[in-house]
Amino acid sequence: MKLTAAIVGASGFTGVELVKLLVNHPKIEIGGLYGSDGGERIEELYPAFRGLFEASIHPFDPERVEGDIIFLALPHSRSMEVAGKLLDRGLRVVDLSADYRLSLEHYEAFYTRHLDPGHLQEAVYGLPELWREKIEVAPLVANPGCYPTAAILSLAPFLPYIDRSMPIFIDAKSGVSGAGKRCSAKTHFCTIDENIFPYNPLRHRHSIEIKEQLEILGKEPIELHFVPHLIPINRGMLVNSFLSLTHPLDPIEVLQEFYAQEPFVRIAREPVDVKSVAGTHFCDIFAMAQGKRLFVSAAIDNLLRGAASQAVANANLMLSLEEDLGLPKLAYIP
Amino acid sequence: MKLTAAIVGASGFTGVELVKLLVNHPKIEIGGLYGSDGGERIEELYPAFRGLFEASIHPFDPERVEGDIIFLALPHSRSMEVAGKLLDRGLRVVDLSADYRLSLEHYEAFYTRHLDPGHLQEAVYGLPELWREKIEVAPLVANPGCYPTAAILSLAPFLPYIDRSMPIFIDAKSGVSGAGKRCSAKTHFCTIDENIFPYNPLRHRHSIEIKEQLEILGKEPIELHFVPHLIPINRGMLVNSFLSLTHPLDPIEVLQEFYAQEPFVRIAREPVDVKSVAGTHFCDIFAMAQGKRLFVSAAIDNLLRGAASQAVANANLMLSLEEDLGLPKLAYIP
Amino acid sequence: MKLTAAIVGASGFTGVELVKLLVNHPKIEIGGLYGSDGGERIEELYPAFRGLFEASIHPFDPERVEGDIIFLALPHSRSMEVAGKLLDRGLRVVDLSADYRLSLEHYEAFYTRHLDPGHLQEAVYGLPELWREKIEVAPLVANPGCYPTAAILSLAPFLPYIDRSMPIFIDAKSGVSGAGKRCSAKTHFCTIDENIFPYNPLRHRHSIEIKEQLEILGKEPIELHFVPHLIPINRGMLVNSFLSLTHPLDPIEVLQEFYAQEPFVRIAREPVDVKSVAGTHFCDIFAMAQGKRLFVSAAIDNLLRGAASQAVANANLMLSLEEDLGLPKLAYIP
Amino acid sequence: MKLTAAIVGASGFTGVELVKLLVNHPKIEIGGLYGSDGGERIEELYPAFRGLFEASIHPFDPERVEGDIIFLALPHSRSMEVAGKLLDRGLRVVDLSADYRLSLEHYEAFYTRHLDPGHLQEAVYGLPELWREKIEVAPLVANPGCYPTAAILSLAPFLPYIDRSMPIFIDAKSGVSGAGKRCSAKTHFCTIDENIFPYNPLRHRHSIEIKEQLEILGKEPIELHFVPHLIPINRGMLVNSFLSLTHPLDPIEVLQEFYAQEPFVRIAREPVDVKSVAGTHFCDIFAMAQGKRLFVSAAIDNLLRGAASQAVANANLMLSLEEDLGLPKLAYIP
Repeated sequence: MKLTAAIVGASGFTGVELVKLLVNHPKIEIGGLYGSDGGERIEELYPAFRGLFEASIHPFDPERVEGDIIFLALPHSRSMEVAGKLLDRGLRVVDLSADYRLSLEHYEAFYTRHLDPGHLQEAVYGLPELWREKIEVAPLVANPGCYPTAAILSLAPFLPYIDRSMPIFIDAKSGVSGAGKRCSAKTHFCTIDENIFPYNPLRHRHSIEIKEQLEILGKEPIELHFVPHLIPINRGMLVNSFLSLTHPLDPIEVLQEFYAQEPFVRIAREPVDVKSVAGTHFCDIFAMAQGKRLFVSAAIDNLLRGAASQAVANANLMLSLEEDLGLPKLAYIP
Repeated sequence: MKLTAAIVGASGFTGVELVKLLVNHPKIEIGGLYGSDGGERIEELYPAFRGLFEASIHPFDPERVEGDIIFLALPHSRSMEVAGKLLDRGLRVVDLSADYRLSLEHYEAFYTRHLDPGHLQEAVYGLPELWREKIEVAPLVANPGCYPTAAILSLAPFLPYIDRSMPIFIDAKSGVSGAGKRCSAKTHFCTIDENIFPYNPLRHRHSIEIKEQLEILGKEPIELHFVPHLIPINRGMLVNSFLSLTHPLDPIEVLQEFYAQEPFVRIAREPVDVKSVAGTHFCDIFAMAQGKRLFVSAAIDNLLRGAASQAVANANLMLSLEEDLGLPKLAYIP
Repeated sequence: MKLTAAIVGASGFTGVELVKLLVNHPKIEIGGLYGSDGGERIEELYPAFRGLFEASIHPFDPERVEGDIIFLALPHSRSMEVAGKLLDRGLRVVDLSADYRLSLEHYEAFYTRHLDPGHLQEAVYGLPELWREKIEVAPLVANPGCYPTAAILSLAPFLPYIDRSMPIFIDAKSGVSGAGKRCSAKTHFCTIDENIFPYNPLRHRHSIEIKEQLEILGKEPIELHFVPHLIPINRGMLVNSFLSLTHPLDPIEVLQEFYAQEPFVRIAREPVDVKSVAGTHFCDIFAMAQGKRLFVSAAIDNLLRGAASQAVANANLMLSLEEDLGLPKLAYIP
Repeated sequence: MKLTAAIVGASGFTGVELVKLLVNHPKIEIGGLYGSDGGERIEELYPAFRGLFEASIHPFDPERVEGDIIFLALPHSRSMEVAGKLLDRGLRVVDLSADYRLSLEHYEAFYTRHLDPGHLQEAVYGLPELWREKIEVAPLVANPGCYPTAAILSLAPFLPYIDRSMPIFIDAKSGVSGAGKRCSAKTHFCTIDENIFPYNPLRHRHSIEIKEQLEILGKEPIELHFVPHLIPINRGMLVNSFLSLTHPLDPIEVLQEFYAQEPFVRIAREPVDVKSVAGTHFCDIFAMAQGKRLFVSAAIDNLLRGAASQAVANANLMLSLEEDLGLPKLAYIP
């Protein structure tokens, strides 16, 4: 018999990816889909599910939802209204919002007042390659943001060698699905098509998430400046970092050693591209140095490794399953 | 001294194209930009105008607006609320909505109750190649829809040869700018990108406009079925017609003869593409027959020949200017 | 122990899709990859395979290749040079080229002189929904073209009701992957981007394939005119047919009855889109009538249902496996 | 009577843009189009020119070509074979290749052996905002590369304030038209679509061009690392620079002061986008500082300001015309 999962916020882009992943998962099945309103059917919202997985989306009631694992695919500030109730009922939660990713201080400085600071302290940051053992026993996993996933995975191996008197600059480019299903002037086809632009340069809230995690990992402060862009692709993101090292080194060697045991982080000797990871859980990383200056470039699928497949990897760990169950490996090529 | 034009509905995609055309027009200048609310500036809505044309968008009052020509770039049903007042004040109007394009009977069957049937009767359908002399003296020109422009220009030459016992099928593909500036699920980048789909098949309201005009021109009823699609391009449209002739003929010869004097209709011996007309007033037409079956394919820029540049051509005629003044000819290639 | 497959022509787009499908297939594994030159590695040509499936592409020798099933993903005219040798050695072959799809007469009229007319006669046209039982026992299956797959699946149910005195017009739109991996002016990004154009209108060679198959199925001649287009998407195609019926009918009912037992053909009451099938083996069909005129619209993934997944379905049948093993169902949405 | 221009290399993307610009130029007309082979017609290569500008492309003979100005739109290393002959005949030349942009030392280190070092010394680097007076009297202007144009224009104002002990990192993104008309795996639609990737990171040859020019302007060495990308758009590029200043400052103020008299450089308080400059000669620049760290972002049309319209601006200056004659200002919006 399979374990069961509830997906809360099933109609959004991340929710839909969770549905797709669990439809194929060998040991977890979907117990129920939930949304704020309910009343819709997933195969009507997304005809791609017709004949494959058809189900109602129910109104979400945190007092009644059940499952071996609860995925919260809600906007930030909505998760912290309900996660506590789920945890108090003994349920285990993977939260895909930003609500449990940051220290209280940073959350309140960059987002809003936190409604559930107690559970915030217990939450584990869900990057399996870095925090696997803590994730396995956590009742609440804060699933990382998409930009932070790519940035942290590609920079963590270099933390011992970073010249901390110098800034790290990150120039990141995201597919539009990262902006979510809601229509806006920014996501109108005519705005995005044949265009590229930075948004929230130096002020995007993922900046603090990257910095905080890298400081926890490296145990020393770093200076980091982050500029994200929207580009005319649906999914996938490329996160480039430019920084200075304390001494020249072979960056490919550093990466290969750090991720020697990690099947879902691939180190490339040629520049990585987004299409080779779109549709998968892989994080592909390329790096190249010129003297003490380092260029690191990481590609992930923003909706999968940057959200849904990472959430499933975390759930697998929390449920004592093999970490790679149900994680997609075949890219949307050609 | 230049003539002056007022652009009502200046912030929409069609309005913006009118602004771009008149900025470069040798004999007409922009007298004022108007919108329902007003209070915005065109160069703030569209930074492309910075340093080039900067102006406030004023609240539109049909009792006070002035100009040698008034362009109404309003949604349908909004135009007929105000066009009458403008006409009664002696102003000349090019209306880019659907409000004055159809017979009363068809308008009310396909749109809504008409509020200004008096002026509807006087309106001239603004396809210069077909109704040039009437346009020159019309106080009110109904600027054709985008699909009808391409369909009518490409089918009109064949009217004497069409087998009327057989249907005409039209399969049309439009860039997303045709759906306007308003955001919706249909215009979300993630809906359009890597996708194509028909919308309102057999029921789109441009169908009756094409049929009515072709019947006026050909003086006999035709049977016509129309299916439009959205495709992942910003601007441009391709309108394909499939029909039967009373006898075999050389369609290129028919087209060349019909448009021998028309510089803005180009007859092609190879299939036409949208990119060669995007950014211009040209309508490119290709045709090919197999026995009595005919395939005709027309490409236009939906926002220019399908809206704004056709409106300027009409205004030129109404103001006794040369028809081609200010009409763009350089495509957005490569 | 798994059955083995050889993939000949593994480096092309169709070959790569076959690799992707067989990597995940529960009962068939890849015995070897072959190409004309050999010497390349699949994960170097397509870095998406790194860490997932790494293998050399060997030079293809029809006298030595082994496998329970041989997939020939070669250009037309290359297949017929080698298929005979494979069949004579007792191997079973799915040929993805056009070489064994047509009658000798039509092949030689539309392609070139046939080099293997003997086996041509024995080949079974591999549309599982229509020829399942013949496929099961065939030594050689001719895998259908992409346009024909969508056209035949969507028109076959209407064959009893088609007015044969009237033409069928087909307007089809394909993603660029259908044009293959080879670079040309037609597949240059700048040619395709923001563009749409017909190619080989009324003369494309898939036209005769559609006509021949529909005449075999319907046992009466039909008149058919076919116009394909390239559109700026990578994969997926939409095939629209316009035709006349002998009498009015409910087309959805006809389709639903015809495909009642077929899980991979989905009948839709709303217009279908390409994105809901891209990445899958599904064929989605929508139809709508106006009196005796019928509009039918079918969407498939050109590289999967139009090539590789259909080939795997055929191989499953030939190897007495369940037809749906390894066929992809999850679309590339959102 | 108009001045005449010869366009050598008229069939490439840059050549076509030159044709488009000169078709509309009030004081320069096209004297002749030239290509290596000749024998083609511009309106057959680009049907967009039909009915607008139709002309043969002649074989290019440097001993016989005439004109008040000669535009060389040739690949690098081809220009230096012929530019000398033109100059020796007293003709004035705008060279759009890389052949006359760099010092001899850098050219030979990054490209190949120089065949015309004599004229190399006399060539003026054609960035009008920076070298206007020298351009006016130059017989040979080396038209800047696309990336260098955006990088130099956006960094030059900050040269007095740059902390030269720290590196400048440049992350640039280009539309595919920058890769030229020739088809290759890199420019295949299926490679570019839904993708982004760096190419020649840290090693692209525009890197030395940017560095050399900034060092000439700033009179001190700088350390610069450059990573360009291809993105799925046709035209336009965004060039982001990240650097450190000697002290905090208001970057908008610095930019506004530097370009106070320059109509074609627009300083923006909001992040710039590519679509607002595509189709124009504008360079839009945004900048933002965090303490001593500076982010600068510049958008241009790679084929216009990055090539053809800059060449026309240079020609205007060389011919004592007003600099802005024939320069396009209307962006390809919406």
